[in-house]
Amino acid sequence: MDKKLIIPRKLQGFWELMPKEQMCFSALLNKLEKVFQENCFVPLDTPVLEYSEALLAKSGGETDKEVYRFTKGSTDMCMRYDLTVPLARFVSMHKDELSFPFKRYQIGKVYRGERPQKGRYREFYQCDADIIGNENLSLVADAECVRLMEKCFDALEIDVEIRVSSRKILTGYIESIGKANIMTDLLIVLDKIDKLPQEEIMSQLSELGLAAKEQENIVNLIQTTGDIVDITKKLEKMCQNSTFVEGLDNLKEVDSYLKQMGSKKVLYDLSIIRGHNYYTSIVFEGFFAGKKELGAIAGGGRFDNLCSYFSEKRMPGVGMSIGITRLFSHLMQDNYFKLDKTSEIDCAVINFDETFGESLKLVELLRKNGVRAEIFYENKSFKSKMKEANRRQVPYVIIVGEDEVKMQKYMLKNMQTSEQAQLSLEEIVKTIRG
Amino acid sequence: MDKKLIIPRKLQGFWELMPKEQMCFSALLNKLEKVFQENCFVPLDTPVLEYSEALLAKSGGETDKEVYRFTKGSTDMCMRYDLTVPLARFVSMHKDELSFPFKRYQIGKVYRGERPQKGRYREFYQCDADIIGNENLSLVADAECVRLMEKCFDALEIDVEIRVSSRKILTGYIESIGKANIMTDLLIVLDKIDKLPQEEIMSQLSELGLAAKEQENIVNLIQTTGDIVDITKKLEKMCQNSTFVEGLDNLKEVDSYLKQMGSKKVLYDLSIIRGHNYYTSIVFEGFFAGKKELGAIAGGGRFDNLCSYFSEKRMPGVGMSIGITRLFSHLMQDNYFKLDKTSEIDCAVINFDETFGESLKLVELLRKNGVRAEIFYENKSFKSKMKEANRRQVPYVIIVGEDEVKMQKYMLKNMQTSEQAQLSLEEIVKTIRG
Repeated sequence: MDKKLIIPRKLQGFWELMPKEQMCFSALLNKLEKVFQENCFVPLDTPVLEYSEALLAKSGGETDKEVYRFTKGSTDMCMRYDLTVPLARFVSMHKDELSFPFKRYQIGKVYRGERPQKGRYREFYQCDADIIGNENLSLVADAECVRLMEKCFDALEIDVEIRVSSRKILTGYIESIGKANIMTDLLIVLDKIDKLPQEEIMSQLSELGLAAKEQENIVNLIQTTGDIVDITKKLEKMCQNSTFVEGLDNLKEVDSYLKQMGSKKVLYDLSIIRGHNYYTSIVFEGFFAGKKELGAIAGGGRFDNLCSYFSEKRMPGVGMSIGITRLFSHLMQDNYFKLDKTSEIDCAVINFDETFGESLKLVELLRKNGVRAEIFYENKSFKSKMKEANRRQVPYVIIVGEDEVKMQKYMLKNMQTSEQAQLSLEEIVKTIRG
Repeated sequence: MDKKLIIPRKLQGFWELMPKEQMCFSALLNKLEKVFQENCFVPLDTPVLEYSEALLAKSGGETDKEVYRFTKGSTDMCMRYDLTVPLARFVSMHKDELSFPFKRYQIGKVYRGERPQKGRYREFYQCDADIIGNENLSLVADAECVRLMEKCFDALEIDVEIRVSSRKILTGYIESIGKANIMTDLLIVLDKIDKLPQEEIMSQLSELGLAAKEQENIVNLIQTTGDIVDITKKLEKMCQNSTFVEGLDNLKEVDSYLKQMGSKKVLYDLSIIRGHNYYTSIVFEGFFAGKKELGAIAGGGRFDNLCSYFSEKRMPGVGMSIGITRLFSHLMQDNYFKLDKTSEIDCAVINFDETFGESLKLVELLRKNGVRAEIFYENKSFKSKMKEANRRQVPYVIIVGEDEVKMQKYMLKNMQTSEQAQLSLEEIVKTIRG
């Protein structure tokens, strides 16, 4: 048959891991899922495709050029670009059936057709947990989301620092000087404060019509960091605007809940802005401890009305999100995963021709006892089987000769230390499982 | 702001579960993953999108009308319609880095734009495990996949019956009567044998040019079922064609491995055909025990060359696949899941105003000890908190008054039996976790 071969390629900017990496990534997701479940969040798994009308409601149906949008038959649809809009769609559809506060988590792939570049993907995972209220939602929920982020990183044994702010503080100050109309532009400038030199920031603030004293106050304000006592001391006399006062009160209330919840890694930092303009009060970000310069690896905040495009009903929410694709890349660079010690096989059973049947039985017994045992049935000679075990970095091998079968005791060899001993099945299981 | 509301809808034919159902479905997937890992299969997570060229290689680049295909910029891409072609693409790309036999599993969503109808979805899960060889692959791998299917259903505590056949037996018989050219059409007819009346089958066989005696032989052949002794007895004198003999020998060899692997639920049944024409020898299907009429809930088989569209290298494979979306629907119908006993909450902590802080602390301690504890902070009165616990079918509540805080002993109430007792934290954890 004359056939043209196709070059096997994956799409550019699409993430795909090799087996050992994938095992590490899956283990990471499992740990996060466990934390969400322990904290009474329910899983949600929405479709990857949504009606364009629903997904693009925010932009009035305009397609952002990054969105994968297409039609099939007469249906206009998009691939989801985040997990938040599908959550809003789901909650709006089922608001009469769900229990509120509705606490859900979702770990899933999202799609953005941007130009692929280092650290940016067109298909990547998001890992979100949100709490949605029905009309009202207590600040306990905000504290819970901050604490949840802390617990996620504790579970991963990653030392993290969580910086919390309330947007209301800055909003209140801007209101107090009669400049509420510049708020959106101001947030855009301030979001760059760690990336641009101070004079450039000042010049941009000046362009927004802020006087020198006001610029100074703003920069001073957003440079406020410390524990709740520190920031209260600095802020409480600064401004009497009611939004400003409410913002500070929100932080104090959240702090009191966080203390009762046993939180230890929270710092208040008014430079935390968050890009999205839907956040309305509490915002927070997680950083590798002492490495703020690497940028946030997780973030979250309070939004006043999740479902405003779908429903008249007010549904305030607060959530947190971990950028797990980016986090995974960082962790890989830092050798967080012991890739050379990651194997899908705990133990290789090395047989001779005459013990193949008995070895198959032994593999089954080991697997039944929680030992991931393998037999290399494609490798014919004893030597090539041992070589394969070495090549695959299998931690243990069991050698099964006829004598071993008779005695029901097998030679177990630790491939790292080269120690070996003749052991019963039970002893082997105990040794390997530790 | 004058704003038009969008009706929140999900796309027709797309699967989306409510929280309790999703919890059950996730638990089911976790059990299957555990089985795959215990048997040394590695996880793979390929992109949902692929180059159309790669995904449609089989059909020479022709789009099946069911495939979601679109362009973005100058890139022609498709959403995957199964997990097998992406596996072939992955293995072909990485054949020099992977260890063979390459054993991978993948659980993921696939996309088919067919008309939605009962039991058919446009987005649904596939759950595949395959073993790919490099040039050669022993029949041990076939046995392993059959046994793996058995283990999957054992892990789900579902009574299953696995029916195994080899296509070579029928192929050999057809060769022996000089009609090899009708094989593809014959398989299509025989695949309908359970759905059409016998006379209709006979008439279709006759249209293929088969004589009356040949029709009878074929129907007799594919009605062969039993254990390996039964079918050997029936078949071994029937035909001396070498393909036929090889098919029977394959079954005998697989049977001997299966016995060593402790398999108990396997039956040989020559009516097992499988739709896909890429299967070349062993084929098998799993059915609810004694309910063959419900159709197969899982299937698999041997294919001679997985990667033929991408590479000159011969890469034979064998795999199994569980139709988990369909399986889940069956299980829901059969009340397999105890939905009313499925809760994301093990225990609600019911506080009074003055014990709120202490209750938050208690919730944390319980969660730290593996009890999914919740506090209903949106419900203000004691009564409404208790009502909420009832409404959510929470199995236990803990009542925390000031006395309880002082004594560090709390009232634990079993909501089903109404039993209650004053217990320490440790005793509570023990009671709830069982």
